[in-house]
Amino acid sequence: MDCIFCKIVKGEIPSRKVYETDNVLAFHDIQPAAPTHALVIPKKHIASMNEAGEEDAELLGEVLLAAKRVAEELGIAESGYRLINNVGSDGGQVVYHIHVHVLGGEKLGGLNVRG
Amino acid sequence: MDCIFCKIVKGEIPSRKVYETDNVLAFHDIQPAAPTHALVIPKKHIASMNEAGEEDAELLGEVLLAAKRVAEELGIAESGYRLINNVGSDGGQVVYHIHVHVLGGEKLGGLNVRG
Repeated sequence: MDCIFCKIVKGEIPSRKVYETDNVLAFHDIQPAAPTHALVIPKKHIASMNEAGEEDAELLGEVLLAAKRVAEELGIAESGYRLINNVGSDGGQVVYHIHVHVLGGEKLGGLNVRG
Repeated sequence: MDCIFCKIVKGEIPSRKVYETDNVLAFHDIQPAAPTHALVIPKKHIASMNEAGEEDAELLGEVLLAAKRVAEELGIAESGYRLINNVGSDGGQVVYHIHVHVLGGEKLGGLNVRG
C-alpha cells in the first residue's frame, strides 16, 4: 500500500504527533492553513467517506472525539475551531485516507470562500 | 429548550428534509454557501463538539455516515464534497446544536480563506 498516512501510522514516515489511541492518530499538518492545524485519522485505511460503511460508525465517532481532544491539547477548545473532512475532487481531497482537519488559533474564514 | 434545531427535529419549525434515521436528521441549509448545502444533526441536543462525550461516539459516527448518504441523495458523492463542523467563536459556530455542513456542487474554496 502506497498510502502516506498508512506509512505515518506505521512510523515509516515521521510526524509530529498530538494524540493517539488504539484506533486513531493525530498529528500536526505540515502545511498549516491556520495558526493551529492538525489532522486526525483512523489507523484503518479508508480512502474517503465515500468508502466508509455502517461498520465504521464507532470508529468515525472516535475520530471526531479525538479531534475534540486535539483541540483541548492544543489550547483552542475555548476559543473555537473548525473540523473539515474533504471528499473527492470538488472537496479538495488530496490524500485518499480519511482525515479530519482541526483548524483554529484565529477567527476562521467563511464556509466556502474562493481564493 | 429554545434550540432552533431541536424545534426542527420536533417539527415545530419546518425544514426541507433530505434524510432521516431514528437518531439523525438532514435538511437543506436556508442560507446555502454552495450550490448544494445541507446540514446533518443528531436528534439528541449536544451544544457543540466540546460538549460531546465518549458515550456519543456511535451517534457522531452515524452523523458522518448520514452526511455520506446525503451526498449520495443529492448527487454530489462522485464529484466530491466537504463536511464541516464549526465549534465556538473562532470556528464561526452560529447554532449551538452540533451540525455538520455538507457542501458541494462546485469546486470548493480553500480550507481557510478570509473574505
